[in-house]
Amino acid sequence: MMDISNDHAIGIDIGGTNTKYGIVNHRGQIIFEGSIKTDQYPTIDEFIDALYGKLQPEIDAMKDVNIVGIGLGAPNGNFYTGTIDYAPNLRWKGIVPLAQLVTEKFGITAKLTNDANAAAVGEMMYGAARGMKDFIMITLGTGVGSGIFANGELVLGHDGFAGELGHSIVIPGGRLHPHTGLYGSLESYASATGVTVTAKEFLSGTAEASILRETPTDDLNSKIVFDAAIAGDAIAMKVFEFTGNILGMALANFVTFSSPQAIILFGGLTKAGDILMKPVKDSMERNLLPIFRNKIQLIFSELKESDAAILGASALVW
Amino acid sequence: MMDISNDHAIGIDIGGTNTKYGIVNHRGQIIFEGSIKTDQYPTIDEFIDALYGKLQPEIDAMKDVNIVGIGLGAPNGNFYTGTIDYAPNLRWKGIVPLAQLVTEKFGITAKLTNDANAAAVGEMMYGAARGMKDFIMITLGTGVGSGIFANGELVLGHDGFAGELGHSIVIPGGRLHPHTGLYGSLESYASATGVTVTAKEFLSGTAEASILRETPTDDLNSKIVFDAAIAGDAIAMKVFEFTGNILGMALANFVTFSSPQAIILFGGLTKAGDILMKPVKDSMERNLLPIFRNKIQLIFSELKESDAAILGASALVW
Repeated sequence: MMDISNDHAIGIDIGGTNTKYGIVNHRGQIIFEGSIKTDQYPTIDEFIDALYGKLQPEIDAMKDVNIVGIGLGAPNGNFYTGTIDYAPNLRWKGIVPLAQLVTEKFGITAKLTNDANAAAVGEMMYGAARGMKDFIMITLGTGVGSGIFANGELVLGHDGFAGELGHSIVIPGGRLHPHTGLYGSLESYASATGVTVTAKEFLSGTAEASILRETPTDDLNSKIVFDAAIAGDAIAMKVFEFTGNILGMALANFVTFSSPQAIILFGGLTKAGDILMKPVKDSMERNLLPIFRNKIQLIFSELKESDAAILGASALVW
Repeated sequence: MMDISNDHAIGIDIGGTNTKYGIVNHRGQIIFEGSIKTDQYPTIDEFIDALYGKLQPEIDAMKDVNIVGIGLGAPNGNFYTGTIDYAPNLRWKGIVPLAQLVTEKFGITAKLTNDANAAAVGEMMYGAARGMKDFIMITLGTGVGSGIFANGELVLGHDGFAGELGHSIVIPGGRLHPHTGLYGSLESYASATGVTVTAKEFLSGTAEASILRETPTDDLNSKIVFDAAIAGDAIAMKVFEFTGNILGMALANFVTFSSPQAIILFGGLTKAGDILMKPVKDSMERNLLPIFRNKIQLIFSELKESDAAILGASALVW
């Protein structure tokens, strides 16, 4: 007799530095998890062998657990082709047929999507977007990622590369984004990296006193800027106001596309809380068409950051 | 015996000035059409009575024609509620329960959506987007409208108001859009109205000779600017270059959202042809993330403008 409550999924989230993996039950509980260093494996085969070496003994040891599939999240991961295409932050170059290689190694069907899409799927199944058919997930970390649901489905695009909102242009002719060559894209401003660049620009543009000047310029990061803003430092507060203004305008633009019930923010930069969110909300409302005003929920993810990546990837299986 | 080939739909497109209606067969052929002046009817009841007076005698006179539904396209038309909500260009104020009123009058189920969404549905059924699951339709007329298909479905949004890309911000703090109060929205630049404003700005900002100066400023319109550009007038050509640059950047941003197979342009401003399209295409490609470059088709609608509105509205029925 098959007991469907024994069905489990494996979730694997591949980041530039760390790869997190876990075994997840139907209720979104992670019953086993671990991680390996992504960048220690020069070839994709060595990487998959390492994952297999960690996961297969656990699977074998579990009684009454039926693994129905493997979900993978990775930068530039493509749902349609199951490949990672030219990911700038990974060691494996070109087009990597990840889903196929993992399927073959484990003998279990594997599905792949990009990391922000996986996070959106996880949020819809287990987080703040439960029951929502139309929402946009924005991940604010080192970069800016996005995953979009419309009409109850993940928007994939004709080629599987939809949901790259971090690369939309918000300041025409603005700051150069080194990885993409684009000028004035959202990721250049509304990421942890962008906040740091803004702080450096603001500091060099004025002689105004700031506790940020106690840190050598090369050592500045978004956490230091945030701590300074909390402490009431005027320049640090202006950095978050500037960042929030730009992000809010970008969110207003996203609303004109899909009129989502909610925009869900996730990732390291959301730890700034109201210091970032107040200017974001003000700017979003100001830049919205009147029919959209005071209707779009702007909320934080309900998933623990450490779990979200695994849950999101595993949710691809169900 | 029912013969399904006798099934027909009524399409009604409500514009600020004219309302066009037609009876359409399953192959997208308009077998009867006509129009009335929208703005002659102070109340919605008088307007619907007038439509009924035109259409019902035709329906009664047709043998073997089975009308299965009525499709309506109107500015601010909402698919979910069947209402027109606060349309700035119509005489009927507030929230108008159009689909319900039409259904009751004709005794035939009526469905409503906004005019650009209807155009996208028509393009998917009968035009350049046949067989496409992911495309964006942009209407460039007096204003800028949009209709979006993702995963094979019209993107409606949680409230039915998705697809308002003309109101996305392209130039932060830019030109004021009088109807919405937004600064720097796409419609302020990439509409027929926007082209005229740009021409006036360019003319007043320089003493450079231009055949546009032969027309009194108040009489300038996009057609005159286009004719001057065709004739090689430097300022008129710069107007289209400027407009195309902004529109192309906006289209690149839309691609980051849904990665469409094609962007389909429709409406009066597309008559400018390559004078507009060359800068649009160049700017779009320049502002795209490398993975999207040279992949997105940028094409014109295949529907005759006079038919598209009726076909698009009627296509809601099928």
